[in-house]
Amino acid sequence: MNTTPIQNLSDTTLKLIHSRQHISPKRLGDPGPDPEQVEKILGAAGAAPDHGLLIPWRLVIIPQERRHLLAETFAEALVERDAGATEEQKQEAREKAYRGPLLVLVIARFDSTQDSVHPNERLISAGCAVQNMLLAAHAMGFGAGLSSGRGLNARAMRQLFGLNEQEQPLCFMTVGAVTKSKPPRTRPGRGDYTSTL
Amino acid sequence: MNTTPIQNLSDTTLKLIHSRQHISPKRLGDPGPDPEQVEKILGAAGAAPDHGLLIPWRLVIIPQERRHLLAETFAEALVERDAGATEEQKQEAREKAYRGPLLVLVIARFDSTQDSVHPNERLISAGCAVQNMLLAAHAMGFGAGLSSGRGLNARAMRQLFGLNEQEQPLCFMTVGAVTKSKPPRTRPGRGDYTSTL
Repeated sequence: MNTTPIQNLSDTTLKLIHSRQHISPKRLGDPGPDPEQVEKILGAAGAAPDHGLLIPWRLVIIPQERRHLLAETFAEALVERDAGATEEQKQEAREKAYRGPLLVLVIARFDSTQDSVHPNERLISAGCAVQNMLLAAHAMGFGAGLSSGRGLNARAMRQLFGLNEQEQPLCFMTVGAVTKSKPPRTRPGRGDYTSTL
Repeated sequence: MNTTPIQNLSDTTLKLIHSRQHISPKRLGDPGPDPEQVEKILGAAGAAPDHGLLIPWRLVIIPQERRHLLAETFAEALVERDAGATEEQKQEAREKAYRGPLLVLVIARFDSTQDSVHPNERLISAGCAVQNMLLAAHAMGFGAGLSSGRGLNARAMRQLFGLNEQEQPLCFMTVGAVTKSKPPRTRPGRGDYTSTL
């Protein structure tokens, strides 16, 4: 039995996992993934663990031609939590909506009538889906980053994305070409988070 | 510029992601990962996105020689939610503790004093860490599966793992050799969970 290919696959996978890093949306520019690549990146989410086959999350792509709606929503969300926000602050909030060629909102789907799968488990599935997408994008040579913030749960945001009462926005994922790199971040080692019973 | 290696990495990664499947702990046997492989699998978790550098989760390995403690805890957890559980049911619960060569509990770490990072985001980080581990194990040729259940939050379980009030057990991850394969499951396609604003 030749174990070389498996060794290579393991090394390649670990290298991919450890070389991925968060890239801020402001460092992500054109060219973004083409339609086929978008299909592959978002398609990777579907291979996440999904106890009970619930698909406990969904994705919404915000195309460039609709970013102005998100921009206004960011500004409204800011005013919602700070009625005294200045026009400059609102403009800064708006500008964030235009960053990055591929922008996707990840939404958790809870279901109080189906309590056999714990909400935590649904979020773990969403996290697995997110990591699959981040790794797929990274393998294609793109940078990607997650972003959230207090505006995520604003009324205006829920309205824009048509969220029902059992849905919660989790984070935005931005994917694009890395326009400006930064040094890799120090990661925790196994000993920082592992113990033995 | 030669783009062939990137294309290969992308194909390899997507193949890895899509060929991974849940393997039930009862189908996972020896040989499990050796110490160096355990290091690599659990080490992959540390490369998960981690907003604010909080490491909002931790891992506990349950070695074979301590499985009897988990077995008793499974039986106690069963009695905790069903005082009328039969000895046979308790024995069935105990037996689950011995399955699979590598068994790890994944625990979420919340922190009410540090509310800048939403609990959902902490669970997304945990999910990303889990997916990194599942993919690393899969790349090494191992099978792996997540398991949870209503016993996860039992008092006996919290006690065994020394969980503080801000910690929640999320799932067990079992890794080992696949002793019995099963046909791949149908996965949702991108269209099942994606829309465009």
